[in-house]
Amino acid sequence: MLDFELILANVRQKTPLIHNITNYVTVNDCANILLACGASPIMSDDADEVEEIASICGGLNINIGTLNRDTIPSMFLAGKRANELGHPVLLDPVGAGASKLRTETACQLIRELKLAVIRGNASEIKTLAVGTGSTKGVDADERDQATADNLERIIAEARKLSVSTGAVIAITGATDIIVDGKQACLIANGHPLMSKVTGTGCMLSALLAAFVTANQEQPFEATCAAVIAMGLCGEIAQRRLSSLDGNSSYRNYLIDAVYNLTADQLQEGAKYEMR
Amino acid sequence: MLDFELILANVRQKTPLIHNITNYVTVNDCANILLACGASPIMSDDADEVEEIASICGGLNINIGTLNRDTIPSMFLAGKRANELGHPVLLDPVGAGASKLRTETACQLIRELKLAVIRGNASEIKTLAVGTGSTKGVDADERDQATADNLERIIAEARKLSVSTGAVIAITGATDIIVDGKQACLIANGHPLMSKVTGTGCMLSALLAAFVTANQEQPFEATCAAVIAMGLCGEIAQRRLSSLDGNSSYRNYLIDAVYNLTADQLQEGAKYEMR
Amino acid sequence: MLDFELILANVRQKTPLIHNITNYVTVNDCANILLACGASPIMSDDADEVEEIASICGGLNINIGTLNRDTIPSMFLAGKRANELGHPVLLDPVGAGASKLRTETACQLIRELKLAVIRGNASEIKTLAVGTGSTKGVDADERDQATADNLERIIAEARKLSVSTGAVIAITGATDIIVDGKQACLIANGHPLMSKVTGTGCMLSALLAAFVTANQEQPFEATCAAVIAMGLCGEIAQRRLSSLDGNSSYRNYLIDAVYNLTADQLQEGAKYEMR
Repeated sequence: MLDFELILANVRQKTPLIHNITNYVTVNDCANILLACGASPIMSDDADEVEEIASICGGLNINIGTLNRDTIPSMFLAGKRANELGHPVLLDPVGAGASKLRTETACQLIRELKLAVIRGNASEIKTLAVGTGSTKGVDADERDQATADNLERIIAEARKLSVSTGAVIAITGATDIIVDGKQACLIANGHPLMSKVTGTGCMLSALLAAFVTANQEQPFEATCAAVIAMGLCGEIAQRRLSSLDGNSSYRNYLIDAVYNLTADQLQEGAKYEMR
Repeated sequence: MLDFELILANVRQKTPLIHNITNYVTVNDCANILLACGASPIMSDDADEVEEIASICGGLNINIGTLNRDTIPSMFLAGKRANELGHPVLLDPVGAGASKLRTETACQLIRELKLAVIRGNASEIKTLAVGTGSTKGVDADERDQATADNLERIIAEARKLSVSTGAVIAITGATDIIVDGKQACLIANGHPLMSKVTGTGCMLSALLAAFVTANQEQPFEATCAAVIAMGLCGEIAQRRLSSLDGNSSYRNYLIDAVYNLTADQLQEGAKYEMR
Repeated sequence: MLDFELILANVRQKTPLIHNITNYVTVNDCANILLACGASPIMSDDADEVEEIASICGGLNINIGTLNRDTIPSMFLAGKRANELGHPVLLDPVGAGASKLRTETACQLIRELKLAVIRGNASEIKTLAVGTGSTKGVDADERDQATADNLERIIAEARKLSVSTGAVIAITGATDIIVDGKQACLIANGHPLMSKVTGTGCMLSALLAAFVTANQEQPFEATCAAVIAMGLCGEIAQRRLSSLDGNSSYRNYLIDAVYNLTADQLQEGAKYEMR
């Protein structure tokens, strides 16, 4: 069983400072969700300072959502420095499979860095597992989504990626699948409306970086707890919607829900199954 | 008469994937308004991937709001690729007339790309029509705004730009003016408060790219419908304001209104006149 | 006594156009808070246009939150042009003390530009005053925060920085401290929740740039009024929170409060002491 109380308390008491090299689309929401959960964000992507910033932080969140020739080298510099210091590094391979640049950058990051967690949708993770993919922009290809039929194959693929990289693998979608070398967790929390807000994946990755940084002894459990927390907050936010609300108000309610989240809510609302 | 039901249904059923090379000020709202209308956004501006990203998308939205030496070449690369594939390309010449770089970049984009739609305020469009301008930052110069007196001249100027470029021209302001080679549409929807939210123009351009991409047989009608939709959502959002609300809540209500928009609302609320 | 009515009226009647070279994390909120207070924003950071943009604007807001090798030269170019034209220039040295790049860039900006206002947290300002620092990411180090014990020393340090630069110094925190060569103002407005929203400092700097640009005869008073306004809006926004609201809704309420702010509210709610 996941000890939500301990995991959440660690985030709030340690207030981990998270270094984000992330995209400019959803960066504000990532900063606010980090503050909401009790962590502290800093965004920095210039090669001249990322090693130093990585040093003063506790964890690093690398997101390739709007990667470019200036920020790609910074991802490697910051990642290597974080590795030297033993800080957890998370990779969100946004759009891996949608362009050669994204696929190659993500694959190279996986080869050269020691990652604590890799979080993506089914197509992105499949792309990393097999080296090529057919991601639909930044959304998963429907043929890659987890179903009852392909679930065991997806878990096996993710486990292989976990074993080869040493990272916890988090595949998020209608059912979230968290895998490491020996365990798997299936999570049923979340709401379809989350896919109508840009950056719910990016926000989850930022949250994950905070949870794993504050709970370094148990990265698998921290990953499961963060994914459950995000999904549950999506449900709580959905229940708050009035008839005039849409995806923009929903985004606010989602971050608000993270801000107000308690261990009791997690305990009662979590829908997960360990394998 | 505009067939709002068909135009809106096309957007929601085809869920067009829109490639955005846009500014970092309003990019999050652009992504969320694309999701709100039923489309799907991807933001990508590195020269090493933009052609590939343009290929997997259905349409391209170029916005020069924070153009720079790295992203300008990407606009041309992506635009040319989209042209080769017959995908609609929209240009939002933010601040054309406010700096030589903006004016020249916008004019060169118009010369080298085949554009489906050009959307700007009165000063920006005038700058493109005559090659120089006096845009007040990113807002229209008051002397350029449409009035009863100068309306025919503005339509004639826009028509000339439409004929020379092949693009539908959308001039937005208190009265919106949509012009192609033979038709014109005057739109009275909208609310002054929209000018108090950053990026309502950028959001409209993103929405336009989605509408035109999903309705390629009728770009003029799709442009009119999108401009009406945005204006109407501005009115709906305004009616939702409480006494403590200001421009920030209004921004949320505006995107929410796009999310909840129905063909019936459009049918009943549209205020336009074909010329 | 501060003449809030005059200072606020100047901002709203002059609608100053503010040039922002700022970070991509909080840029949207900065644009919206400028619109909320009655000013007009333009964001532009390419070296090929910043001098021209600085020329058409009334004031310049330089924020080093996500500085990089492309935007740093633009800060100097724009700043020097604004100086030539006698436009107020504000510096927000985000994270000075957290990396050598930030500290050195901020110190060089102070040496080479004539600044009207420098606004930062206690650690950032201390870093500028002594040339090195220990800023905790983008937050102040607890040891640097103002207390009853170190208040006189902080004022003396800030005064020295003010005298050497000619700028009004604004140190924001639980107590805000505004200092110029001869006066000091202590401000008790604000709410701890403001530190749970990313960019409240950046937003204040944007607001400050507008207030000082519209009130150039009295930069010290305009700075005090803007800091009081921001703090008071933080209090007003806090009173609006419902039990489900968190930091995301609070962000909206904060900008909304600036939008609705009246001179009467300022007059009644201001908590400050001139020294």
